[in-house]
Amino acid sequence: MTEEWERLIKQMKNGSVRALARLVSRVENRVPGWMDAMKRVYPDTGRARLIGITGSPGSGKSTLTNGITRKLVCAGLKVGIIAVDPTSPFSGGALLGDRIRMGAVSGLDDVFIRSMATRGALGGLNQCARDVAKIMDAFGKDFILIETVGVGQDEVEVVKTADLVLVICVPGQGDGIQALKAGIMEIADIFVVNKADREGAEQVVIDIQTMLELDADQSAPRPPIMKTVANKGEGVPELLAAIFDLLQSRDRRAGRQEARIREELIGLVEKEIAALVRKKWEKDGALDRAVQQVLNHEKDPYSIVEETLVPLASYLNGR
Amino acid sequence: MTEEWERLIKQMKNGSVRALARLVSRVENRVPGWMDAMKRVYPDTGRARLIGITGSPGSGKSTLTNGITRKLVCAGLKVGIIAVDPTSPFSGGALLGDRIRMGAVSGLDDVFIRSMATRGALGGLNQCARDVAKIMDAFGKDFILIETVGVGQDEVEVVKTADLVLVICVPGQGDGIQALKAGIMEIADIFVVNKADREGAEQVVIDIQTMLELDADQSAPRPPIMKTVANKGEGVPELLAAIFDLLQSRDRRAGRQEARIREELIGLVEKEIAALVRKKWEKDGALDRAVQQVLNHEKDPYSIVEETLVPLASYLNGR
Repeated sequence: MTEEWERLIKQMKNGSVRALARLVSRVENRVPGWMDAMKRVYPDTGRARLIGITGSPGSGKSTLTNGITRKLVCAGLKVGIIAVDPTSPFSGGALLGDRIRMGAVSGLDDVFIRSMATRGALGGLNQCARDVAKIMDAFGKDFILIETVGVGQDEVEVVKTADLVLVICVPGQGDGIQALKAGIMEIADIFVVNKADREGAEQVVIDIQTMLELDADQSAPRPPIMKTVANKGEGVPELLAAIFDLLQSRDRRAGRQEARIREELIGLVEKEIAALVRKKWEKDGALDRAVQQVLNHEKDPYSIVEETLVPLASYLNGR
Repeated sequence: MTEEWERLIKQMKNGSVRALARLVSRVENRVPGWMDAMKRVYPDTGRARLIGITGSPGSGKSTLTNGITRKLVCAGLKVGIIAVDPTSPFSGGALLGDRIRMGAVSGLDDVFIRSMATRGALGGLNQCARDVAKIMDAFGKDFILIETVGVGQDEVEVVKTADLVLVICVPGQGDGIQALKAGIMEIADIFVVNKADREGAEQVVIDIQTMLELDADQSAPRPPIMKTVANKGEGVPELLAAIFDLLQSRDRRAGRQEARIREELIGLVEKEIAALVRKKWEKDGALDRAVQQVLNHEKDPYSIVEETLVPLASYLNGR
């Protein structure tokens, strides 16, 4: 590990927000040495609670995140926020939306905000978000709120292993089936019907209840349905109470922790192996040759992949 | 390759829709032998045009897909539709939405519809959609429409390498920044402002134009902005004309093809290697032991992953 890494970790542990920010960026960008840095950070982790906050665009996620953050900070707790935006594959960066929206709390001490973009290959959104959460945890955050758009497999993965997941629904966003399409309803620990002062809010509550009744696993505890008007702060204290309540049940948390570690180990190994193979393949020009072979109809992609895999498979099985 | 595979491929090539459906399911589920089956199917591919259709929930994607399909069928063309839903990680399956919506065209001959769900590990949504598109191509489809929710990296990847991408916008879905968040604006070949009879449609057109003017790459051809009222069929003929127009420009298509092959080769290799390693890791109990070590704070995940990778890396570099 280079001196730069050593210095940043030391400064971060001493409470430097700038060092924290730089550390996060470097780990996110997989700067060489990041794994060693994470090893060094790891012993200080395990204290923070992770809350996933998800819902479709326009559901008021950021406003609610703001509201929850304010209450936590008032209670003397330290908060980290990870806002995940699906990336533009071109710019490689998140657009301004959340940073602007987050303005309300971003000035507060004890709140550290990070916007993340899905970056295709680089370690995967999911793993990067976990790494960033760990660094915030080691820095001393009590709560880490991960806010994501609730559509897309990647986004679901990000919140899936949080200690607690809030799924936000709002009245007036298309019909019920569209809402269900998101595929996030099943991972909710708490449903939040936001903009509850709007027409149709009661119907959303009924729709969620109906859906929960259709659920195959009737033995599982039913997630509570809370109503909020986030931009007025209404219902936020009750929501926080429900959050604290659920976090108390330790069994649940232990189960999640094991699942999270399992996912994390597999995710890390897969990404790293893929990176190794890709690098090797690109380096010796084999990939370019393969692309040309397929383009010229000399070979099909499946045969090429198989030929690449055979030696690796026999190596793995021979061990 | 088993007899079952052989039989299905033969029947599919003879025009059996049932065989086509079964083949698609088996490849999607990665039934052993799927790679050999794809090798057999491959020589008959390369003729169909792939059109990606994407937009947020409620933008009228399915209705527009319906409208385009009807026109193509009227013109004597054969159409395949792949509807991609973000999955529920629990049920593993797409919900009913699109199948219901697709009712209008699903009864037509010459239209084959497939709903797909993101399935986490199994080959990846992206790759599966490509495989399914290839089978439809080999079956003799002229056009394959891939409809996805336009949020989430996975969904972007699915349409990114289509021959042509339609991005659908509608008036009245939150503010401009929310729309931009989707990160799909940059991959549009044609913008479609649907529900153009609604208030605010002109503003959407202006917003898109403004965004295009802000684009860094001013030398690239500007995607046209088309207006439709899909549920009344308005603007669909003009949209189709624009689609045919763009598909004529061959240079564009060749570049996309190379990018698609490259992505595909890397994607296939990565997924297959990850599956190999995961299988090996789960089989000999090493994964369970590793999870326990992390749970008991005996080791950190990064060290475990590194130890797993070192022999593999030296094997790859030694070749």
